[in-house]
Amino acid sequence: MKKIELDETREFLDKGMKRFFLVADSPYLKLINFNLTAGHVFPVHSHDLDGQLTIQVLEGSGAFLGAEKAEIQAKTGDILFSEIREPHGVRADTDMRILVTITPPI
Amino acid sequence: MKKIELDETREFLDKGMKRFFLVADSPYLKLINFNLTAGHVFPVHSHDLDGQLTIQVLEGSGAFLGAEKAEIQAKTGDILFSEIREPHGVRADTDMRILVTITPPI
Repeated sequence: MKKIELDETREFLDKGMKRFFLVADSPYLKLINFNLTAGHVFPVHSHDLDGQLTIQVLEGSGAFLGAEKAEIQAKTGDILFSEIREPHGVRADTDMRILVTITPPI
Repeated sequence: MKKIELDETREFLDKGMKRFFLVADSPYLKLINFNLTAGHVFPVHSHDLDGQLTIQVLEGSGAFLGAEKAEIQAKTGDILFSEIREPHGVRADTDMRILVTITPPI
């Protein structure tokens, strides 16, 4: 057992940038905390691999992004559930913290 | 892609009880939101299976529980990372919401 404290990775860089912390990496899953400053866009991307991921909004708001300019509003407590091979991204409208879970880890 | 709104499953039962919602179930992971009222103890348990889980505190405080009466303080933003076969549990000292991620899903 290991405790991870997300409070300890609450660090933002300059406007429009992202800071990230790999908070867990194991044979079954990877957890990454990204802290996006307002205006940052995490570009839509995908990987041609089997598996799934979640993007959970810990703080702030913006949008989950998908294929063909799809946008889904995203606020604290919202989780995007996606296949790894589906296009996915995030836009931060305010300073925004997200927790990404990837399984299996890539 | 599918959006999960944790705001929609913020429901507590009577004192000392737990309410839970399976918010995602897929070949790679299972996500369960448990809402524990103050005083509820999610008993220490384990399963003899390969895999890992995380228990993330969404709201409230209490303790992560482990083997041999181990206790680790748990507050909003804390995550317990554990093997599925390691004993794990939770005690809610206040009303407490947790998000459990299990991979592979069991």
